Amino acid sequence: MRVQDLPTPALVVERSALDRNIDTMAAARPGPLVRPHVKAFKSTVMARHVAERAGHRFFCCATLREMEGMARAGLGDDLLLANETLDQARLRALVARGDARISVAVDSVETVEVAAAAGADVLVDVDVGLPRCGCVPEEAGGLADLARSRGLEVRGVMGYEGHVVGNPDRAGRVAAVAESRELLRRAHSEVGGEVVSVGGTGTYDLHGDDVEVQAGSYLLMDTDYGRLGLPFEQALRVEATVISASPKGWFVVDASLKAFGMDHGNPSVPGFDVFFCSDEHTTVLVPDGASGAPPVGTRLSMLPAHVDPTVAMHEQMAVVDGDEVLELWPVDLRGW
Amino acid sequence: MRVQDLPTPALVVERSALDRNIDTMAAARPGPLVRPHVKAFKSTVMARHVAERAGHRFFCCATLREMEGMARAGLGDDLLLANETLDQARLRALVARGDARISVAVDSVETVEVAAAAGADVLVDVDVGLPRCGCVPEEAGGLADLARSRGLEVRGVMGYEGHVVGNPDRAGRVAAVAESRELLRRAHSEVGGEVVSVGGTGTYDLHGDDVEVQAGSYLLMDTDYGRLGLPFEQALRVEATVISASPKGWFVVDASLKAFGMDHGNPSVPGFDVFFCSDEHTTVLVPDGASGAPPVGTRLSMLPAHVDPTVAMHEQMAVVDGDEVLELWPVDLRGW
Repeated sequence: MRVQDLPTPALVVERSALDRNIDTMAAARPGPLVRPHVKAFKSTVMARHVAERAGHRFFCCATLREMEGMARAGLGDDLLLANETLDQARLRALVARGDARISVAVDSVETVEVAAAAGADVLVDVDVGLPRCGCVPEEAGGLADLARSRGLEVRGVMGYEGHVVGNPDRAGRVAAVAESRELLRRAHSEVGGEVVSVGGTGTYDLHGDDVEVQAGSYLLMDTDYGRLGLPFEQALRVEATVISASPKGWFVVDASLKAFGMDHGNPSVPGFDVFFCSDEHTTVLVPDGASGAPPVGTRLSMLPAHVDPTVAMHEQMAVVDGDEVLELWPVDLRGW
Repeated sequence: MRVQDLPTPALVVERSALDRNIDTMAAARPGPLVRPHVKAFKSTVMARHVAERAGHRFFCCATLREMEGMARAGLGDDLLLANETLDQARLRALVARGDARISVAVDSVETVEVAAAAGADVLVDVDVGLPRCGCVPEEAGGLADLARSRGLEVRGVMGYEGHVVGNPDRAGRVAAVAESRELLRRAHSEVGGEVVSVGGTGTYDLHGDDVEVQAGSYLLMDTDYGRLGLPFEQALRVEATVISASPKGWFVVDASLKAFGMDHGNPSVPGFDVFFCSDEHTTVLVPDGASGAPPVGTRLSMLPAHVDPTVAMHEQMAVVDGDEVLELWPVDLRGW
């Protein structure tokens, strides 16, 4: 099959760019120093490819669906739900399968009790500056004590500096990571355990070998992370078709806000200016000096602003080498 | 099953509110005066419910996947692809099934030729002010002539005033609809045919009985259309769980930008202020004067800002009567 035979919109991954991204990260942080984040690609086939190529065998997930799918796929050497869950029944069933090592983030008495009822290992999730999940550092030791009193293994701490990973100023990232790490260091000294799980694609090279980095976006990338000057390439695009062209200076393609995560802004159409997005139409302007709109029927590529929600809108990724479609990888971990 | 037994995030439809919305629209515009837009709900079960309750038997769709699914479900009395397509092979296969009347919008020589190769009926799509698809009115007659010369039935014209439907000022909507209708009237006089297909939820009551209105959002509604003072109720919500609460004044729920269309802004959490959305976390602030954050484990409801892309992110809708889950309706028409 060739790329032009795919119905549009089609999610397309350039295999060589993906593999260079995998290799670049694995050279910087080999094996267990990276815990790839499944939320960024939601595909067990892709997870297996990353594990086989780079040797990263431990994964983290954002949802129970992702955890369940990874376990079923035989990718359960060490799965971390890097998120809080109150769904005791599903967590217990996941642990009871017995085919995966299951750890969960906890940041409250309630989430510790859920982990205890399920028999999962835990990491204490610490607020290191992002206003989201994570206990305040002073409470981390108490939660660890509670977990141990319930018979749980406390593997260590997690602190996601999500307020830092997208800062395009590298010096700013360096300074903010140092602050976050100091908060996490203090919490870790109270919690104990061997695991310190931090970061993301934007801060992957600002951490030492004493931590594991949770990174996922580096594999496929998006235009938002593209601003940071990281050594990762844009491997993901959406193929679209020009379905209309107006003599008034715009044309329309058939991929839009049902095919792209919109929270980081509009997708891009290289060489043109995106005017606005509708459900199934993106209206595109021809900039001054350009040679005009592409003819109706033209295929072109669009670049997502935010990779994670974009992938989650598609049922498969076409993995390509230039014009040739090599494989179709199901996005089998969407939903919850 | 009860609502609190659904894993979160869960898309929930209040059956009584849905049915009141259906009845309100059917009273204003009975039978063929509304062509419900499948893109807003992407479910053949829901389409059948609307057809049986309201007598709207003709539907419009935004994608070939929606057209194919509706035909397969036996809902093909009169299906309009209210969009341009260049996918000749799939359109031809759809027509060749023979179990549905298939019409498509055309606005260019290229799209007429695709319809001709497939043997589909056509409506000439006219630009009535929205910078998107649609030929300029002066070209409509020529495209109709071309289509007839290819042996196609030209059923009439379509003109979607998408630049008007969201205007919260009713007088502004009235004036703009009058302008759009005048453009479409001129085009129709050149094109001929019996069908004049226009509008949407925001302009459903600004058109006469000489046209059909393409409306979909009225069935489930969202907070964006809610600003317009229309007689339709919010029937759709997303159930979420509080997974974390910070002593610093925020709490976190487990439904966010992978569960909501974000192009019209953040979802709402009634009684609280949404701070920001991450992939699987919404951080919510407790406003001054409120009694505090809900405890970890609390279930609460969130309201989408844009119904169409929100529904497209979920695999099912739980149709409920208060706390009771009556049915699970698959969102079976997602993708392309």
